[in-house]
Amino acid sequence: MHNFTFKNKTEILFGKGQVQEMRSRMPNDKKILFVYGGGSIKKNGIYDDVLKTLEGFDYVEFSGVEPNPTYETLSKAVEIAKTQDIGFILAVGGGSVIDGAKYIAAAAHYDGDGWDILVNGAPVTTALPIGAVLTLPATGSESNGNSVVTKKATSQKRAFGTPVVQPEFAVLDPSYTFSLPTRQISNGVVDAFVHVIEQYLTYSVNAPLQDRFAEGILSTLIEEGPKALANPTDYDTRANVMWSATMALNGLIGQGVPQDWATHMIGHELTALYNLDHAVTLAIVLPPLMYVQQDKKRDKLIQLGERVFGLQMEDKDKLIEETIKQTQNFFEKMGIRTKLSDYELAADEVTKAIDNLKKNGHTALGEHQDITPEIADRILTLAI
Amino acid sequence: MHNFTFKNKTEILFGKGQVQEMRSRMPNDKKILFVYGGGSIKKNGIYDDVLKTLEGFDYVEFSGVEPNPTYETLSKAVEIAKTQDIGFILAVGGGSVIDGAKYIAAAAHYDGDGWDILVNGAPVTTALPIGAVLTLPATGSESNGNSVVTKKATSQKRAFGTPVVQPEFAVLDPSYTFSLPTRQISNGVVDAFVHVIEQYLTYSVNAPLQDRFAEGILSTLIEEGPKALANPTDYDTRANVMWSATMALNGLIGQGVPQDWATHMIGHELTALYNLDHAVTLAIVLPPLMYVQQDKKRDKLIQLGERVFGLQMEDKDKLIEETIKQTQNFFEKMGIRTKLSDYELAADEVTKAIDNLKKNGHTALGEHQDITPEIADRILTLAI
Repeated sequence: MHNFTFKNKTEILFGKGQVQEMRSRMPNDKKILFVYGGGSIKKNGIYDDVLKTLEGFDYVEFSGVEPNPTYETLSKAVEIAKTQDIGFILAVGGGSVIDGAKYIAAAAHYDGDGWDILVNGAPVTTALPIGAVLTLPATGSESNGNSVVTKKATSQKRAFGTPVVQPEFAVLDPSYTFSLPTRQISNGVVDAFVHVIEQYLTYSVNAPLQDRFAEGILSTLIEEGPKALANPTDYDTRANVMWSATMALNGLIGQGVPQDWATHMIGHELTALYNLDHAVTLAIVLPPLMYVQQDKKRDKLIQLGERVFGLQMEDKDKLIEETIKQTQNFFEKMGIRTKLSDYELAADEVTKAIDNLKKNGHTALGEHQDITPEIADRILTLAI
Repeated sequence: MHNFTFKNKTEILFGKGQVQEMRSRMPNDKKILFVYGGGSIKKNGIYDDVLKTLEGFDYVEFSGVEPNPTYETLSKAVEIAKTQDIGFILAVGGGSVIDGAKYIAAAAHYDGDGWDILVNGAPVTTALPIGAVLTLPATGSESNGNSVVTKKATSQKRAFGTPVVQPEFAVLDPSYTFSLPTRQISNGVVDAFVHVIEQYLTYSVNAPLQDRFAEGILSTLIEEGPKALANPTDYDTRANVMWSATMALNGLIGQGVPQDWATHMIGHELTALYNLDHAVTLAIVLPPLMYVQQDKKRDKLIQLGERVFGLQMEDKDKLIEETIKQTQNFFEKMGIRTKLSDYELAADEVTKAIDNLKKNGHTALGEHQDITPEIADRILTLAI
């Protein structure tokens, strides 16, 4: 096991009705910026719950944070935070809204253009405190310090991460996910699944507990994901998906072990160019990546097949083949097509994506930094 | 799944050499109280490492915190903390030293006799901050807010718990456990194992991720525990045991699920009366408790047998019987005898223990509060 340093400061308020617990956790001597997205929370009752919780607090609303939140939109909120002396941000939404809130929180305390944080690595030493109400289980953003922001003007999608912007609390009420569109549940489950895979499917460093925690999340998502699609208002199922998605990327399972974020990096280029949903790109990239990297990931692929998919085969090559097939089948079962051709993309589009990968300097991906653009090309070509 | 609120504020500094990371996490404008136990840290080099790390800091030493730390000893440290304007406590040791530090931290900020906190439930709203260097993986005290203290004068063993006294950081260096006596490794592994069981072996509330995390820790302890005995200086094995013991009682796996601390409560009486090691009492009590409560715990016993011990049997009653036997075998394999008669205790001693259980008001234990003194008597009688 490698050395590690781990702390997760977010207080999880999990369960039905927990939104009211926010009252004792928000400052009543400071102005709160209530940030949300496109307004779906007004249709499903979450907005009303939040307003009730905010009664007696001094707050201002900021709506319109889009999926893949943009610098352009967030800059307006930063302006409000700076001019209206905001002291706390309440983010109500999915990963995009919470990622956006993190940018606002950091930029509000930054003397200059906040974009510096994303492109020039300007250090974030202070930020507005954030509270989150999660409406879409997927990214884990509610209890980590990571944020991804896009600058529309230059088509740049950049990330930053620091515990300074990690939410102080996160309300996880499974009933808040009942009204989510099917597509968002599909995406959320697949996103969480791949987050786990990226921290697990590498090589062994003799860290059996991390392995078993990762396998526990994968097994739970495989079991509960299809149920979440079939029975949208089954509370326990949604609770299990929600808790799994948070545990998938709150830092815990990745401590002391190698990681491989190649699927995410290659997928990002497909989203940037062809506007595919983030989770869709992961479902497209992961199976051929497993196939191409199978020698490097051999032991873990076998372990995944045996422990998570319950496969027992003498012929380990066949077992690996079947493990990859079952992974792909799971994505399809979650309602996500896994081939580029399903989205009318082919060799030309692959070439463009690989060109961008090079342009962005992502020329050595994976846990061994051996996924060159040529190998990424092979992966995407297999995905056609 | 039940509602829950969860936060773990402790920063884990895991791995070889991590003790030096403390330097940036301790205050250099306040006096530090360096608390430790009987002096074994002077023989194994940990004391020297800590002194090196403390170079340039203002600190005072307090040694002699005993196993099952006493109010009498700790009160001397409280006096030092109060009169010498201590601003931070560094606890170097196992669960007893860290539990003791928590009491010192709370009592130092309490206006009156600190024992009030344990017997009269005096609220702990403020305490000295604590940092911990763990030398014995077992209790999980390094990253939770619980503390057990004994008052010698009245033979009272009492507990208190609050996040206020939870360590700010915990150094977990597996190499610091190389020199531990065999008995302490045996005890530590069994203690951690039973901590998991107490949060797992109840009834299902449809919380599969919590179940799988618990099973992951149990499987890892079963796998790594005997190796830790056989190869005391195998770093990875010690690392896996250490991380498992922390995860066993840092609050995570018990969120949203019922718990049953009857084994601990019954065991405490055996320690109080007959001075048996804490883990020894757990190893004695758990197997007959599983047997007596098997109807109430049926589904979880089957799940434990199948998933953790890898049993496959048509006859589920036989499977449960075998699961209990394997649990007992594991304790014996870890070098702990599991019968009261192994310690020359018999029916008379059982009667005394049950009398004390009644005297202390523990008359309704277990996840259903249905373990009466009569049932506890049956459990202990089976253990003879």
